[in-house]
Amino acid sequence: MQQRRPLILISNDDGVAAKGINELIRFLRPAADLIVMAPDSPRSGMAAAITSQNPISFLPVSKEEGLSIYRCTGTPVDCIKLALETVTPRCPDLIIGGINHGDNSAVNVHYSGTMGVVLEGCMKGIPSIGFSVCDHDPDLDFEPTMEPIREIVHKVLHHGLPQGTCLNVNFPQYPPYKGIKICRQTIGCWEREWCSCPHPRGGADLYWITGHFSNHEPESTDTDKWALDNGYIAITPIQIDMTAYPLLQDMQEWDW
Amino acid sequence: MQQRRPLILISNDDGVAAKGINELIRFLRPAADLIVMAPDSPRSGMAAAITSQNPISFLPVSKEEGLSIYRCTGTPVDCIKLALETVTPRCPDLIIGGINHGDNSAVNVHYSGTMGVVLEGCMKGIPSIGFSVCDHDPDLDFEPTMEPIREIVHKVLHHGLPQGTCLNVNFPQYPPYKGIKICRQTIGCWEREWCSCPHPRGGADLYWITGHFSNHEPESTDTDKWALDNGYIAITPIQIDMTAYPLLQDMQEWDW
Repeated sequence: MQQRRPLILISNDDGVAAKGINELIRFLRPAADLIVMAPDSPRSGMAAAITSQNPISFLPVSKEEGLSIYRCTGTPVDCIKLALETVTPRCPDLIIGGINHGDNSAVNVHYSGTMGVVLEGCMKGIPSIGFSVCDHDPDLDFEPTMEPIREIVHKVLHHGLPQGTCLNVNFPQYPPYKGIKICRQTIGCWEREWCSCPHPRGGADLYWITGHFSNHEPESTDTDKWALDNGYIAITPIQIDMTAYPLLQDMQEWDW
Repeated sequence: MQQRRPLILISNDDGVAAKGINELIRFLRPAADLIVMAPDSPRSGMAAAITSQNPISFLPVSKEEGLSIYRCTGTPVDCIKLALETVTPRCPDLIIGGINHGDNSAVNVHYSGTMGVVLEGCMKGIPSIGFSVCDHDPDLDFEPTMEPIREIVHKVLHHGLPQGTCLNVNFPQYPPYKGIKICRQTIGCWEREWCSCPHPRGGADLYWITGHFSNHEPESTDTDKWALDNGYIAITPIQIDMTAYPLLQDMQEWDW
């Protein structure tokens, strides 16, 4: 009996024209049918945002055997929600965000549109993975990520992922990679986040987001930042349930 | 010795003109100094999005003893990041998102701009609370929420919150409230999320987001949805660390 090829739904936050998503398509095409719905322009830092104030739309970019690409006016999360209700012929076996141009480890999981894609896939009950490289270069050489991505995709298709969980995979800036580490999310935060300049026509000062990530636990060797800083591919398993269970217990004792 | 009044930084995702945030200001003014920086227009569903592609700016709306209000062109998270670096005279004792017009319980924590405010405050190491009412009416009567909000704010200022944790507080649509329940995040997801209509000038079909929340565990009495459905104020303690620790353990056994 012929085995059905897996169906993978892909989106990102760098936009449908970004090199990262097109390289991902190239890496996965030999082994899977692909449907791509991605934002029509960059939506970096869009987190799990949805478009609530306006309608959105999508148009086909290209269609061939086993590969359909659409561009969408919405956010990365909109792309997943909309593709699942409009263009996927059946429930995908996997949802992938990426390959993102830039680091989505540590608390970046909260800001990342690529990880928004992944959280949305996970909420829909579909195994979901985000791939990111710690380099913003729009013309980055993604070739070194190809074999690890194929391996991780193969393993997730084989093992599945427990309901309510997904994967945040980050590649260090510089190959060769030392291997794969399964990590926890690094504790830390962004600092000195704004670069201001006067308004060219005398309006209110303009602020561009920038910043420096402060790792609050640089000595911990089990975090995703440590893995990346030391040349390893970091896989951080992520869950949808954000409940702080220890605090839930403690707060029962507060005098309500 | 005179005790210093607490300083509270406030934002939301419904915009600086929304009734909810202005009622929150009225409720808290007697007991705290307030700095408000909120989006200049509605940013519902913006999650923890940041503005990465353009610069943002802010302008004062009003300033009087113990209350400064600013409107900002950025996202809810931008408002917190920018206020902390530009207009707060010292580190706030508390950050509040709200009062949101609409339900932010269950998985809505991932989409909510109001909860984006709260996650950002938490990442900055400041006790943070989101307040939401399960009613989108722009002219809602928020009066019944006043005493519970004052009580919860007082308790959090007194007890503090552990690093990396924050609170998601939701009020049922209809008072009187039966009391307060400390809950976990409900498991469920949104379904049938798009309402389509033809483009009025013949372009691609337009899709408006809508949807129905499917509670996957309606019988569980310890969830925030159950509390709200049964007339209780739901307090869901939330954490920044999204690591799926059980999966992290399991994946060590995969053959890497």
